[in-house]
Amino acid sequence: MSSVRVIEINENISAHNDTAAGKVRRMLTENGTFFINIMSAPGSGKTTLLTALINRLKEKVRIAEMDVDIESTLDAQRVADATGVPSLQIHNGGLCHIDADMTYRALQEFDLKGIELLILENIGNLVCPAEFDTGAHKNIMLFSVPEGDDKPLKYPLMFTVSDIILITKTDTMAYFNFDLEKAEKNIRNLNPDAVILPVSAKTGAGMDALEELLMKEMRQVQHV
Amino acid sequence: MSSVRVIEINENISAHNDTAAGKVRRMLTENGTFFINIMSAPGSGKTTLLTALINRLKEKVRIAEMDVDIESTLDAQRVADATGVPSLQIHNGGLCHIDADMTYRALQEFDLKGIELLILENIGNLVCPAEFDTGAHKNIMLFSVPEGDDKPLKYPLMFTVSDIILITKTDTMAYFNFDLEKAEKNIRNLNPDAVILPVSAKTGAGMDALEELLMKEMRQVQHV
Repeated sequence: MSSVRVIEINENISAHNDTAAGKVRRMLTENGTFFINIMSAPGSGKTTLLTALINRLKEKVRIAEMDVDIESTLDAQRVADATGVPSLQIHNGGLCHIDADMTYRALQEFDLKGIELLILENIGNLVCPAEFDTGAHKNIMLFSVPEGDDKPLKYPLMFTVSDIILITKTDTMAYFNFDLEKAEKNIRNLNPDAVILPVSAKTGAGMDALEELLMKEMRQVQHV
Repeated sequence: MSSVRVIEINENISAHNDTAAGKVRRMLTENGTFFINIMSAPGSGKTTLLTALINRLKEKVRIAEMDVDIESTLDAQRVADATGVPSLQIHNGGLCHIDADMTYRALQEFDLKGIELLILENIGNLVCPAEFDTGAHKNIMLFSVPEGDDKPLKYPLMFTVSDIILITKTDTMAYFNFDLEKAEKNIRNLNPDAVILPVSAKTGAGMDALEELLMKEMRQVQHV
């Protein structure tokens, strides 16, 4: 094995975000709203999966959705057109994350009365969103097969802060020589408690299990 | 079309990075070193493509490589093992970018004498790295087919600052219904001058053209 030198170049990052996140979470819990924060790399299929998921759930549960993007309204429009649920596009001015204070300000734009499930589609990024608690009850991460089974080793914080990790585009597993067992082991080393669920929005595989999981988690928040 | 409300949540980002970037670029130009900054989303195939590219070029050109990651040494080790060229792993302490000052500090660790091509594999991220000039002569972006042909609309700055845009994993184009013409049009709207080159490290398609392009750009820097 060739030797590789390593140098550390650090800056301090501080979040000061926990109080605001607690406020968001308490407010939504009191309102009976289960709030999930969906994170992933760009192009891992967040909007496609969310659209499929919302269409399965919308007759049973009242849903609202928020999308964070740098400047386009593409995702919120796609979700709104495909599902008909209220959808809010948040532009964050070029930042790579949304924090709890921004989430709180965005929530003021919504009529949350009666909303049981609030979904935040975070910006496509495996670094910054992991550092900011948005106030969500559960962090859900999408990890798509074409990204490769070694991704947990490279973005450890994202895999550590996620409660539910969806391995997406599983229909492409053979093509990309994706080793599911290795991927799961890489995740477990960082986060032994994460729920790991392989899904494919294209074939529908795993979508029943995802629906069941979210309904169960939602009921828990509503019965606090 | 359902209507979508949009709210703007901004913060100022300032870079103060241009002086340091200019210093890096001048230093490398004087040294006869062509410096390229490779950016992309996580999992778009940077390390695989770089390994293939370095192995094609290393007999003709003296190459050094730097990898930025949050904490793993996976990529630098992969490149070093597969190519044998000097490889430096930079840990940036959880940041989503590397700036020109960090690049300058990293360069102090190298013996650059005789190095003709210096490659920076930036952190996998479509937001932050676009905001920081590293001092590279050319920014090269990888845009992988599984991410979808709409990605330029969502990460406009990255597509705007890139001189060369490689559409990677083109062997999967049919499977993902990727519309190359639409992708190119989306890129051209943001960046009419970018060189767009479809490649596949798996099949080798486009690799001759990429090699030729880089050699031409390298000669230009060396003959300033």
